[in-house]
Amino acid sequence: MKALTLHDSLEVVDDAPTPRRDGEALVRVICAGICNTDLEIAKGYAGFKGVLGHEFVGQVVEAPGSNLVGRRVVGEINAGCGNCDLCAKGDPRHCEERTVLGIKDRSGAFAEFLSLPVRNLIEVPDSVSDEAAVFAEPLAAALGILEQVQVSPKDNVVLIGDGKLALLIVLALARAGANLTVVGKHKAKLDLARRFGARKTVNARTQQADLEPTDVVIEASGSPSGLEIALRIAKPRGTVVLKSTHHESTKLDLSTVVVNELKIIGSRCGRMKPAIEMLKSDRVDPTALISNRFELAEGVRAFAQASMPESMKVILRIP
Amino acid sequence: MKALTLHDSLEVVDDAPTPRRDGEALVRVICAGICNTDLEIAKGYAGFKGVLGHEFVGQVVEAPGSNLVGRRVVGEINAGCGNCDLCAKGDPRHCEERTVLGIKDRSGAFAEFLSLPVRNLIEVPDSVSDEAAVFAEPLAAALGILEQVQVSPKDNVVLIGDGKLALLIVLALARAGANLTVVGKHKAKLDLARRFGARKTVNARTQQADLEPTDVVIEASGSPSGLEIALRIAKPRGTVVLKSTHHESTKLDLSTVVVNELKIIGSRCGRMKPAIEMLKSDRVDPTALISNRFELAEGVRAFAQASMPESMKVILRIP
Repeated sequence: MKALTLHDSLEVVDDAPTPRRDGEALVRVICAGICNTDLEIAKGYAGFKGVLGHEFVGQVVEAPGSNLVGRRVVGEINAGCGNCDLCAKGDPRHCEERTVLGIKDRSGAFAEFLSLPVRNLIEVPDSVSDEAAVFAEPLAAALGILEQVQVSPKDNVVLIGDGKLALLIVLALARAGANLTVVGKHKAKLDLARRFGARKTVNARTQQADLEPTDVVIEASGSPSGLEIALRIAKPRGTVVLKSTHHESTKLDLSTVVVNELKIIGSRCGRMKPAIEMLKSDRVDPTALISNRFELAEGVRAFAQASMPESMKVILRIP
Repeated sequence: MKALTLHDSLEVVDDAPTPRRDGEALVRVICAGICNTDLEIAKGYAGFKGVLGHEFVGQVVEAPGSNLVGRRVVGEINAGCGNCDLCAKGDPRHCEERTVLGIKDRSGAFAEFLSLPVRNLIEVPDSVSDEAAVFAEPLAAALGILEQVQVSPKDNVVLIGDGKLALLIVLALARAGANLTVVGKHKAKLDLARRFGARKTVNARTQQADLEPTDVVIEASGSPSGLEIALRIAKPRGTVVLKSTHHESTKLDLSTVVVNELKIIGSRCGRMKPAIEMLKSDRVDPTALISNRFELAEGVRAFAQASMPESMKVILRIP
């Protein structure tokens, strides 16, 4: 099959083996999204080799023991061992033996086909377009914050970052009713943040003095300077959520963390069902975040485009 | 009065002004303890100048509006503004306007006299010796962990560090019933950890492979290598408590924090009352941690001794 693969370098090949795993579903990919984690993996993070990609919508070709064949689906990207305590509780996100679509020991979504356990698939309602469905995975990651931190309508929250994941966090938190301030560097993206429900936006280059001490700060810029701001403006005993994967050791002033008794919480994946529910019901359309569309054959060019600072979500269409 | 002061350097002077603040208590210091924070302040951390010291027991000389005169007391070291929301709730530990005994804008305990608000003083029961009472402040800090993290008898906890604060944490957590493993580098200190209630000790130099993934890890070594171990052995969604004040920017692999969704909690001061209660009731004697005693006049030498790796608690006696 045709696939965008990473070995010595990123390359589109025509002869990647179709991924088939015993007892799992086979899904024909319709379209997929490029995420910052993909860009980092392409640079060598996590040591992954093979077909990249974990944000997708597809059509089920085979699904042993289920009636999903022919249906349009998205998929939980963590495939657990099925036997450990965590898997028994239905949450394989931290299963020690897990594989992760296009990230760890499992061929990914930038290909004609992918394989996932049937239990990982979630049907996409007709009212949700293919391109909207591609946002289910990063939107789930955004909603995952609400599994870890209680945010209620009276809470002031500052979000550092205005990239595509940050803007999905805006959608998720605005829906939870948070009084949200977004700190970013790009006017167009901050405008979108307001459209998505942020009450206030702050230009990180010129308006940092406007930031007030806050109970909850979410760092989704992925930059050390973003983290510095977060630690500085978090109130004593406040919470700083780390949502971006930082790939190099970051210098951190831990005396602030101790003296102010801050809580730093790492946050990675969410669950797909609430994301699909939100895409179905919400009036805000995440496809406003799409900046470019490419065919799979142009995958290498799509990655180059996704690396540009002005880019937002880059979509790969699989013919 | 005689006092150990920090200006350009550490020096014992005979003519320090007796600290008197309107409406506050005046306490004659009986003895005081040198803490690692004092050693760091002496190196320039926090920019404090003046009389150092915050672990003490003393006798009340003046105490407007109270019947404490003549009584033996310890004191909460954070003196709040008395007006803000936090102070109104009786917890000035994060009051923005707070002064802190021997740490921030308030003359400390390595002196013949100190001043604290009357409400900060806690009477010491007769059954608690002067030297045991000096441990009330660091023991309160150790007990403060239990305000932030629930530890119950079935919980496995790993404590990184075998210094004097770490060993008080052993006392505090053993009393909460935790199944505690202590990681350290000094045989004698690890022996004391077992005497204080640790179920297991691990030599950080030779036995790190014995450490198993754990829900709660407490970092009290103050070293970057201790923090590395903590992040490595914390289970997914586990908690890492930072108990040591790290004074330089520390390099941290934040990808572990995000991928494993760890919670890092900074922990600083506790409350004195539970510490005094514990000193009163407990069969274990923290004075086993005292390695040296000096007169106030020998304060500079006492600091040099306290800086030696083999030292534990160094006590200053105020004649």
